Amino acid sequence: MTLDDLLSQPGAWLAPGADTATVISSRVRLARNLRDSAFPGWAGEEECEKIWRRLQPILQGLPELAPAAVFGMADLEELERMILFERHLISGEQAHKGRGSGLVTAQDESISVMVNEEDHLRLQAMSPGLALQAIWQRMHALDHAIERQVPYAFSVKLGYLTACPTNVGTGLRASVMLHLPGLVLMNELNPVLKGLTKIGLAVRGLWGEGTEAAGNLFQISNQITLGDREENIIRHIEQIVLEVVEHERNARARLLERKDLVLRDHVGRAFGILTHAHLLSSKEALDLLSGLRLGIDLGIIKDLDRLTVDRLLLLTQPAHLQKREARSLKPKDRDRVRAQLVRTQLS
Amino acid sequence: MTLDDLLSQPGAWLAPGADTATVISSRVRLARNLRDSAFPGWAGEEECEKIWRRLQPILQGLPELAPAAVFGMADLEELERMILFERHLISGEQAHKGRGSGLVTAQDESISVMVNEEDHLRLQAMSPGLALQAIWQRMHALDHAIERQVPYAFSVKLGYLTACPTNVGTGLRASVMLHLPGLVLMNELNPVLKGLTKIGLAVRGLWGEGTEAAGNLFQISNQITLGDREENIIRHIEQIVLEVVEHERNARARLLERKDLVLRDHVGRAFGILTHAHLLSSKEALDLLSGLRLGIDLGIIKDLDRLTVDRLLLLTQPAHLQKREARSLKPKDRDRVRAQLVRTQLS
Repeated sequence: MTLDDLLSQPGAWLAPGADTATVISSRVRLARNLRDSAFPGWAGEEECEKIWRRLQPILQGLPELAPAAVFGMADLEELERMILFERHLISGEQAHKGRGSGLVTAQDESISVMVNEEDHLRLQAMSPGLALQAIWQRMHALDHAIERQVPYAFSVKLGYLTACPTNVGTGLRASVMLHLPGLVLMNELNPVLKGLTKIGLAVRGLWGEGTEAAGNLFQISNQITLGDREENIIRHIEQIVLEVVEHERNARARLLERKDLVLRDHVGRAFGILTHAHLLSSKEALDLLSGLRLGIDLGIIKDLDRLTVDRLLLLTQPAHLQKREARSLKPKDRDRVRAQLVRTQLS
Repeated sequence: MTLDDLLSQPGAWLAPGADTATVISSRVRLARNLRDSAFPGWAGEEECEKIWRRLQPILQGLPELAPAAVFGMADLEELERMILFERHLISGEQAHKGRGSGLVTAQDESISVMVNEEDHLRLQAMSPGLALQAIWQRMHALDHAIERQVPYAFSVKLGYLTACPTNVGTGLRASVMLHLPGLVLMNELNPVLKGLTKIGLAVRGLWGEGTEAAGNLFQISNQITLGDREENIIRHIEQIVLEVVEHERNARARLLERKDLVLRDHVGRAFGILTHAHLLSSKEALDLLSGLRLGIDLGIIKDLDRLTVDRLLLLTQPAHLQKREARSLKPKDRDRVRAQLVRTQLS
C-alpha cells in the first residue's frame, strides 16, 4: 500500500455515521519498550535500524493490524511524512526522524504502531466520535499480541518503563478531540478548561502539545499514567468528556435562545468568507470551518453536511494541499490553493 | 414638499451618469452674513427667528432654488434632522439647532441654503463626480440673487465677514469626496495626504471635520479662503484632485498587475460578508461597500452596478435606516436591520 492509497480514503477519524457533533474523535495510545535494547533517544542509528528491522515483520504479520501498510521514515519525502502527521498517524517528533524509525498501520488507519519515536513502540488506535472503551479493547488485544513476540521493559513496582517518566506505569494516553464553539461563543470555555486541568487532565490544541487552539478544537487527555488501572483511566475520561459534551450542548441551546442573531451572524460570515475568499491561511480556514460546522449542527446551514466540513479540516492542511497539487508550495501559494479548494467544495 | 418626498429620490450626489469611480461628488459652499444683524452665535433665539422669517420667503422665491423645499429645524424630529445631515444638506451643528434655524433646498437637493447655522447664510451646491467649476457657476448666480435682496456683511479690506475667521474673505469652501481604496490597499495613501496638507488643503473623513475615514472615503477641501479669487481657488482644487485621481488610477492598475490575488480576496470577502452577515455596524458596512465598489469598478464583480452600492452607502446610515423602518432603533437593532437591507439589496 502506498501513501496515495492512504490518501484515497477519508482518514480514520472521518468515518461517517458516528455522532461527531461535539466529540470529533477518540484516540488511545500505549508507550512500550523492548527490555533488551536501549531507548531510541540513547540507541544510535544502527541499533534503531536493527530494532526497526526486527519489529517491522512482526507487526506486519499481526492479524490485529491486517491488512497492514508499512512506511519507513527514511524512505519518505518530507511532504509524505507531513501527510502522515496531518492524519495523526505519526507525531511531529517522528516526522523529523530518518533511518530506523517507521510506521506500521492498518490500512484503514484505525490502529497503528510507530516504531522508534520516543519509545520503541507507540501503539495507537483512533475512532470517530466518543469510543474510548471500544478502541481500548482493540488496543489491549494488539498490546498482548505484540507482547507474546517481544519482551517488554517492565518493572513490577513501576509498570511499563518508558523514555519519558511522565508515561511510566500504564504508558497509556487516552484523548478525545472536541469541537467546542458553543462554549467559546458563550464565553464559558475557560472555567471548563480550568476544571479539567484541576482534575489532572491536559487540554491542547488540534496538533497536540504546545499548539494553539484553532477552529475551537480541543484535545483532552489524561496526564497521569501511574497508579491506576487502564480501564479506570479510560472510564474516568469518558465520564468527564460526557460532562463537557453536556456543557457544550447547553451552551449551544443558550446560543440559539439568547444570542440567535450573533450566532447567525457568526455562521453566515464564516460561510460568506469561505465561499468568496481567495486567500485563506490554515488557522483562518480552521476557525471559519468551525463556524460552518456549528451552523450545520444547529440547522442554520442546510445544504451542507458535517462530513464535507470535516474532510476540508483535513484536506486544507499544508501537506495534504501540496500533495493534492503534486508540488511544493510556498505559504502564500498554499493560502491561494486552500481558498480555491474550499470555494470549490462548498459551492 | 415633505421629507418623505426627499427620501423617495436618490440624493444629489447619487445621480447616475457621472464618472464617479474616484470622485464621488463635488460640493461648494459660501458663508454669508447680513450686515444689519448679529451673527447667529451672538444673536438670541428671538433675533434668529426674525432672521429666519425674513430670509425664508426670499430664498423660497428665488428661481435659483425653485422648486424649493423648506424645513424649519424646530419643526423636525431629531430623526428627520439626522436624515438631512446624512444627505449632506445640513451640518452636524445645525442638526442640533431649534427655533430660528432652517433649510431651504431645491427639491433635487443640488443647491440649498442653511439659515442660521454658524453664519446667517450657508449656500451650498452639490453634484456627482468632479464638477466644481460648474457648481461654482450656479452658486455664484445664487449668491448674486440673494445679495440683490439682502445687505451682506462685507469689508472692502477683508471681503465677506463670517462668524469664524477661517472663512473670512471669499467665505468659500470647495470640497470633493474621493474614494481611494487603491491607494489605501497599495499602502500609498499617506504621502498623498501629506502632500495635500502641505499645499494648504484639508483632508477629512466622510462626515467632515473630526470624523474617521471609513470606507476609504476622503473629503478634500481648501483651508484658505482669503487672498485669492474664487475662480482660482476652485481651479486649483480641481487640478489637485485630478492629480489624486491619477494616483488612484495608477494604484488600481498596479493592484491588478501585482497584487491581483490580494485584490480579489479583498473584494471577494467584502461581497461574501455583505451577502451573509446578520449584523453590520455603520463603519463596517462602509468599509465593505468600499471593497465592493472597487470590485465593480475593476470588473471583478460583474452583476452589480456602482449606483446600487452608492445607494447603500446612503441608506445604511443610522437615520435613513430608522426612517425606513419607521421607528427608532437601538444601535444593535440598527446593525441587524442594516445587514438585512444589504443582504436583500445585493442578492
